[in-house]
Amino acid sequence: MDFTELKDIEQKVEEREDFSGEKVRPLGVFFPKDEDEVVRIVRFAKKNRLPIIPWGQGTSLTGAVSCDKNCILVDLSKMNKILEINDIDWYVRVQPGIKLIDLFEELEKKGFMLPPDPASFFLCSVGGAVAESSGGMKGVRYGSFREWVLSLRVVLPNGEVIKVGEPLRKNRAGYDLVHLFVGSEGTLGIVTEIWLRIIPIPKRKMVMIAAMLKDFESAGEVIVGLRKNKILPELSEYVDADVVKALNKHLSANLKETEGGMLLISIEEDSVDDVLKVLEGKTVDIKIAEGEEAEKLYSLRSQAAIAVKAESNKVFYAEDIVVPVSKLPEAIRRLREIGEKYNTKFYVISHIGDGNLHPNIIIEDKVARENAFEEIARMAIELGGSVSGEHGIGVQKAKLMAEQIVKHNGVSVLDLMYHIKKLIDPDDIMNPDKYVELAYKFLTSRG
Amino acid sequence: MDFTELKDIEQKVEEREDFSGEKVRPLGVFFPKDEDEVVRIVRFAKKNRLPIIPWGQGTSLTGAVSCDKNCILVDLSKMNKILEINDIDWYVRVQPGIKLIDLFEELEKKGFMLPPDPASFFLCSVGGAVAESSGGMKGVRYGSFREWVLSLRVVLPNGEVIKVGEPLRKNRAGYDLVHLFVGSEGTLGIVTEIWLRIIPIPKRKMVMIAAMLKDFESAGEVIVGLRKNKILPELSEYVDADVVKALNKHLSANLKETEGGMLLISIEEDSVDDVLKVLEGKTVDIKIAEGEEAEKLYSLRSQAAIAVKAESNKVFYAEDIVVPVSKLPEAIRRLREIGEKYNTKFYVISHIGDGNLHPNIIIEDKVARENAFEEIARMAIELGGSVSGEHGIGVQKAKLMAEQIVKHNGVSVLDLMYHIKKLIDPDDIMNPDKYVELAYKFLTSRG
Ligand SMILES: Cc1cc2nc3c(=O)[nH]c(=O)nc-3n(C[C@H](O)[C@H](O)[C@H](O)COP(=O)(O)OP(=O)(O)OC[C@H]3O[C@@H](n4cnc5c(N)ncnc54)[C@H](O)[C@@H]3O)c2cc1C
Ligand SMILES: Cc1cc2nc3c(=O)[nH]c(=O)nc-3n(C[C@H](O)[C@H](O)[C@H](O)COP(=O)(O)OP(=O)(O)OC[C@H]3O[C@@H](n4cnc5c(N)ncnc54)[C@H](O)[C@@H]3O)c2cc1C
Repeated sequence: MDFTELKDIEQKVEEREDFSGEKVRPLGVFFPKDEDEVVRIVRFAKKNRLPIIPWGQGTSLTGAVSCDKNCILVDLSKMNKILEINDIDWYVRVQPGIKLIDLFEELEKKGFMLPPDPASFFLCSVGGAVAESSGGMKGVRYGSFREWVLSLRVVLPNGEVIKVGEPLRKNRAGYDLVHLFVGSEGTLGIVTEIWLRIIPIPKRKMVMIAAMLKDFESAGEVIVGLRKNKILPELSEYVDADVVKALNKHLSANLKETEGGMLLISIEEDSVDDVLKVLEGKTVDIKIAEGEEAEKLYSLRSQAAIAVKAESNKVFYAEDIVVPVSKLPEAIRRLREIGEKYNTKFYVISHIGDGNLHPNIIIEDKVARENAFEEIARMAIELGGSVSGEHGIGVQKAKLMAEQIVKHNGVSVLDLMYHIKKLIDPDDIMNPDKYVELAYKFLTSRG
Repeated sequence: MDFTELKDIEQKVEEREDFSGEKVRPLGVFFPKDEDEVVRIVRFAKKNRLPIIPWGQGTSLTGAVSCDKNCILVDLSKMNKILEINDIDWYVRVQPGIKLIDLFEELEKKGFMLPPDPASFFLCSVGGAVAESSGGMKGVRYGSFREWVLSLRVVLPNGEVIKVGEPLRKNRAGYDLVHLFVGSEGTLGIVTEIWLRIIPIPKRKMVMIAAMLKDFESAGEVIVGLRKNKILPELSEYVDADVVKALNKHLSANLKETEGGMLLISIEEDSVDDVLKVLEGKTVDIKIAEGEEAEKLYSLRSQAAIAVKAESNKVFYAEDIVVPVSKLPEAIRRLREIGEKYNTKFYVISHIGDGNLHPNIIIEDKVARENAFEEIARMAIELGGSVSGEHGIGVQKAKLMAEQIVKHNGVSVLDLMYHIKKLIDPDDIMNPDKYVELAYKFLTSRG
């Protein structure tokens, strides 16, 4: 491919690998420094019918940035500025390439927070988190990115630049296109500017309860217990016994190893007793942490996937199912059964308070690994849940997504999604053959 | 029109009027008792190319349910059941015709709340509130309906039934279609079932501060002051001096009349002092109310529009602009100027904490009334705001919406919205010639 026309834009020829281990072999990697350069790249790609993969930090766990040969990567990492922190209108305006951790730090200095905090916050870009509508550890109280995006500038697949939404919490001027782009996994356009709602850091004192559980089953039962007692923590995260071991081994975590793993609950100090009541009879050990000690537990939780990856010798599929909270006990029982069937343990990491579980599958044999993966996702569909809570679909889950939509929503829903993709990207150059498009192909090829 | 085919479905021939005073003269009004009947009505309409107007309770203030002769109304008031209150998964599933007040009452009995509380909650239907993405008095903390809808069943214009979304807080299976239907003003389909997220009623004691202000300007300054001090009330509502008078006159409110009108702020008891500090020097009188007295103030606020309507002798345009909070002082200054120019006062009701102002225009002369209406909306556009925060567009604001989108978002945004409408409703039978479609027509006729 002759890139002369784009030669003044920073570029490289290189291979990459995303966090899921998918190989990425593009014709070229471009590093636009501003929106104009993005527009030029997109126009060039359109003219040449060349697939474009927007790339944030490549922490996708579903192959959402994968590409083999005939494509270019648009790496947004040079567009990484904070453009405005508005402390009266309570929004922040950023370029997509900024890392979430850098944004968090700047906001904190001014007394603000952007609540959704994917465990990858120290790695991932804001653009990637918007394109995946990433969730986080505080999602149980504050929701995912889709609840915090106000407005976006987007370079469409035809090279036009639009802004969707307004940097206002309330705006009823037309259909809501913001939420169409949030979570669109780079298939509808390249996001070049983002307005996010922010809130003051709450003043009430929070504490972190680290409950080392008696058994796996207790994890689900405690969450149901919290709900029954109308307790809404700021964070309720769970990692199972094997993840605790991996954290001790690879990150010197020094956590107590129990059969049931660790449940972390962060909540206002004056609600601790209510939580302890729900925990009664379910724990081997309880620690109540504050300040630095609480931070350390939070940080260990955020690195749990890293520890599992270290354990896994690279054959590691991260599941991302959601089940209704009321079905957590059943999901956990069935997870154990599936594990026994495949003679494996699952290294479960989870935003359990929302019913969002990440069983990590590290079976060496590829076929068995894939079968277990699908079986878990189908269990979620059966229980009225979803095949993805936050990692998205990419290439890895398109078939399962099609199954979910057929079972829960109606075939026409996938059809409608596909036609929206075609409406916005008629030449099919924007992160093609993934997600909605790929799910649609599974459906139609199935007949 | 021969309705024999539908004769077993409850129906009537009658004229109606919506709350904005628009006349509604359909060929027939249908009262489906279930989704199947909705499907049959829609199929019939499709076959006969007959416009359908979904009707909740007709409290629309923008002519969103208007229709002249060649159309049918689908009145959802008979589909008014609560289907499930799930106290573990924390959602409620309802039919669209239930009144919001009835839903609130049932939720309260179980210790839950659905936070968005439009001031019309004692009149409007849940389906109407979803179709308008209504905001409410507690929106400043909790947002509008779009932040609370999880999933919807919809009868599409072709008569097919789909479900969009899942009754889960986290779900990444495909593009977000839920938010496309929320706020779509009945133009994309008829909503037949709704899953809404609910939360436990917070336990902390709240108090209501009723601040009678020194002058109009103080209202904006106090809100900016709250933001600067990082104070986030549960409710911050303002009605101006003339609205206070109207409340006294028509609803025996017995409120103190001051030049600045009344600002209501509800907040946790232990934050009252922080609020009082911000109010310093801006008030003539302050009352701190709890319990029943606080309820009464809340209820008066919710009926403010009724009092203004009583005052207005029916020529009453309810504006619904949003400005960035930081621009509130300027917006208020300019509102006063516009009022002076038209020799009128505006009866401002507002969800002021979000920058959402409802100046009510009761000028007798229609041309002057329309001019003032447009001038106010254009001021909002100029200040980086929106022509609608919650009442929506209907027929009344389509031109202004087109202007806003051209100025803030790019022409292609309206184009995209229009093509989504065409994709979903190719025969153009679902609440046609309003909202997006009408805005698009203004744009294209303008050349
Ligand atoms: C250790 C670890 C922990 C994780 N924990 C979580 C978690 O708790 N919650 C969670 O939700 N996810 C989690 N993830 C998944 C992943 O990190 C997130 O989805 C993340 O937000 C992706 O960001 P990224 O910048 O790496 O995006 P990438 O992986 O580079 O891209 C992801 C998708 O976004 C698109 N994209 C990127 N930038 C843009 C742009 N500017 N415009 C348009 N499209 C764009 C890409 O094309 C791709 O489809 C985790 C991943 C790892 C490795
Ligand atoms: C006194 C008063 C105060 C108000 N205060 C507020 C406020 O604080 N906040 C606010 O946001 N609004 C407010 N409004 C505006 C209005 O009440 C709200 O928008 C309300 O939610 C509309 O509900 P409704 O049932 O009356 O809907 P309708 O007026 O009957 O319909 C509104 C729109 O929704 C569509 N629709 C209705 N049901 C369905 C369905 N099942 N499927 C698809 N489409 C449907 C209609 O076609 C129409 O486009 C107020 C109105 C009044 C009269």
